[in-house]
Amino acid sequence: MKVRNPRTGIYDYEISPLFFDTLKIKADTMRQAQKSWQVIGIEQRIKTIQKWKKALERHLDELKEVLITDTGRKIEAESEINLAMAAIDQFCDLALAYFKAEPPTVFQHQTHHFEEYTEPFELVGIIGTWQFPLQDTFLQVIPALLAGNVVIVKPSEKTPRFIKVLEKTISQVPNFQHLIHFIEGGKETGEMLCSMVDLICYTGSESNAKKVFEQTAKNFIQTNLNFGGKGVAIVTETADIELASSAILWGGVFNAGQSSDSIERVYVHRNIHSKFLSRLVGKSNLLTIAYPNVNNGQIGPIISEKQALLINEQLADAIKKGAVMVAGSEKCIVQKGAYFCNPTILTNANHQMKIMKEKTFGPILPVKSFLSEAQVLDFANDSSSPFNSCIFGNNQNETMTIAQKLKSKTITLNDVYLENRFYGNQKAPNISSEIKAENIGSHSFKQFLKGKNIIFKK
Amino acid sequence: MKVRNPRTGIYDYEISPLFFDTLKIKADTMRQAQKSWQVIGIEQRIKTIQKWKKALERHLDELKEVLITDTGRKIEAESEINLAMAAIDQFCDLALAYFKAEPPTVFQHQTHHFEEYTEPFELVGIIGTWQFPLQDTFLQVIPALLAGNVVIVKPSEKTPRFIKVLEKTISQVPNFQHLIHFIEGGKETGEMLCSMVDLICYTGSESNAKKVFEQTAKNFIQTNLNFGGKGVAIVTETADIELASSAILWGGVFNAGQSSDSIERVYVHRNIHSKFLSRLVGKSNLLTIAYPNVNNGQIGPIISEKQALLINEQLADAIKKGAVMVAGSEKCIVQKGAYFCNPTILTNANHQMKIMKEKTFGPILPVKSFLSEAQVLDFANDSSSPFNSCIFGNNQNETMTIAQKLKSKTITLNDVYLENRFYGNQKAPNISSEIKAENIGSHSFKQFLKGKNIIFKK
Repeated sequence: MKVRNPRTGIYDYEISPLFFDTLKIKADTMRQAQKSWQVIGIEQRIKTIQKWKKALERHLDELKEVLITDTGRKIEAESEINLAMAAIDQFCDLALAYFKAEPPTVFQHQTHHFEEYTEPFELVGIIGTWQFPLQDTFLQVIPALLAGNVVIVKPSEKTPRFIKVLEKTISQVPNFQHLIHFIEGGKETGEMLCSMVDLICYTGSESNAKKVFEQTAKNFIQTNLNFGGKGVAIVTETADIELASSAILWGGVFNAGQSSDSIERVYVHRNIHSKFLSRLVGKSNLLTIAYPNVNNGQIGPIISEKQALLINEQLADAIKKGAVMVAGSEKCIVQKGAYFCNPTILTNANHQMKIMKEKTFGPILPVKSFLSEAQVLDFANDSSSPFNSCIFGNNQNETMTIAQKLKSKTITLNDVYLENRFYGNQKAPNISSEIKAENIGSHSFKQFLKGKNIIFKK
Repeated sequence: MKVRNPRTGIYDYEISPLFFDTLKIKADTMRQAQKSWQVIGIEQRIKTIQKWKKALERHLDELKEVLITDTGRKIEAESEINLAMAAIDQFCDLALAYFKAEPPTVFQHQTHHFEEYTEPFELVGIIGTWQFPLQDTFLQVIPALLAGNVVIVKPSEKTPRFIKVLEKTISQVPNFQHLIHFIEGGKETGEMLCSMVDLICYTGSESNAKKVFEQTAKNFIQTNLNFGGKGVAIVTETADIELASSAILWGGVFNAGQSSDSIERVYVHRNIHSKFLSRLVGKSNLLTIAYPNVNNGQIGPIISEKQALLINEQLADAIKKGAVMVAGSEKCIVQKGAYFCNPTILTNANHQMKIMKEKTFGPILPVKSFLSEAQVLDFANDSSSPFNSCIFGNNQNETMTIAQKLKSKTITLNDVYLENRFYGNQKAPNISSEIKAENIGSHSFKQFLKGKNIIFKK
């Protein structure tokens, strides 16, 4: 299976998906190892994971290099590594408190009492993304292991180069290769994985999440699906325009707009529309693509060729239907086989355009003005998916009212929050490396544990 | 669609499944009604549900009569009605506390704080069972409504007669018919329902749960599946034999053994095996089938003809492989077209027999002796499903060790717990009407609510 290089367009790497029987034997061996991994307890599990961290630290430069090759993006690759390494310690600290202190949940009944214990699923399968190949998997791998599971990870077949480096670090920790295993492969390998594990965690696009869900249903196993939607930014009349324009631009173009949670449409109150737009365009024009030198510029390549063509199609459709391009380019630029997309701002957008309704996954911000709270809610809720959104404004009554009526899983007020990071800075687009509540609190362990009730007669 | 009468075998009732378009129009109307149902708040929702309770009370005799016809069982029908009516008040009390007091869950972060709110799914679909047609749906319908959802319920096509009575009571509460709707129909109607709701709750067999899961995956909606497994009873050497034999018999034959959680295999320590068996057989021989008079006898008909044939097949297989029948009959008795199964005890059972591995869903208790803790765990865990189990013994170290190693979702010590009821009595099989923790605590509402995060910068 050949793999394309996103900075050259050349298929310069090859992976060898495992045969079913080989993977099955590996899975069975890991199931055996899981038993003692669960029994040794949280302190020993933390010790082992810290040994892995040390091994990872010895190979950080190598890991960075392959991640940059995998994604073609430098700023993001560095950020991923920092976030993943920081996550190890944070999860270990949390786990010590969580698993040592957590008593069974007790429910008192007139004649009986119920104690709810938890136990690991045992063998967990994690299907990773090409958007954030390292970070997205580490935020699941570490809590899954700490909870006493063993884990098989299948990263995306578009970004598989970092697997070999990770496997090298795993082999440096005694017996650790029976507890965690990264495998190469595409759709077929993912399907095989679904047939032999107890829980599947998938992160990626909604359309692929649907396919994974059908596979896991067929195998009748538990599934955690993480996917984004058509992220929304709402800028009300009382918003701080400097803050809003910087934050929204960052939310739209970070990682070349290729985040599940990226901001993909902007609704601005008519009274500040032109002021906001001029600041957004001014800031957007300061950004450049990171080509030919990976060290310069902020916007990396569009990793998948298919996605670049879809972005072009959506841009053409929008312009045909009356959108006006006020910054950026009308299509992705091809640089010796690699696709790059300039940060692009469209105005005069409407909901007949695909770019306002379907996931774009590129650094494009279409802007539409609104007149009233009711109108902006109609626009924003015109999407079937739960999504990430942000509201800017200094009238707290108004922003909270909109937040409550917005059909959105996550809503950030006066800030942009995506892929576990806050914008957190009002200057030029930058990156902070924070981990979100779901990934830092007890929820991160709970998703890898199942309940068991023991009932006693009083 | 014709419906069989379980006490006569005659197809004496007919249902008319809705056409897709009719159901879709109904679903859309209910979605509109859901908005104000959510907005009016918990106190108004409780008031409406209490009005429905009053309407139900006016029709209890009629409801009892149709439920007895639907299931052919009197003791269980009465018990179902008592449990469902008691559940209304219990859930209303709980909801008042839960929805009025429940603040958002707050997570503090260095630079931000997260508030987690909940909101209803909106339109919920509930697929009911023929085992407990009324109770199983009410334990979901009431919390779903209290949480602000509107609900479409599709009871089993094998027990649909109670629908008309319920719909009559619904029509007596103003506008209530837009909030809750019971529909007639089989598999196709269930599939239609999966395509138009936001959440499906299914209760029933594991094999049908798999089919429902595939449907909901195709429609990419959230699913709660409730199904049982091959329920286990373990009787250790120190057990109170009087208590264990009564409780296990009850757990095996209540509702003619047709509960998801019923006890379907018994492992007894060799040193007390013959003593236990003689008490179990003695008590079993006191029970009789409720025929020809529905008011006499404890064991109702096997509702589904298909199931009766499966029970016969498993019994024949077990006897062929060496099981010895020490109470009951070698097969279901046909009484003028209706199938009845005597409480049947088998000894000399082994794991080559289907009856020790596959769901029987009849009042059959195969008994096998064991020598050691390790051996009984091997036997009990020889099943792919999570199941309900119970352990009898007065050495608490031993029972807790077994409980921890048993692969079972629910484990009751020195008692039997099934279908939301405890055995709770050491005399002849009787019925108590308790509601289990999952259905009485906040979990009952949580399953009908989804999370929404609002994030504030500090």
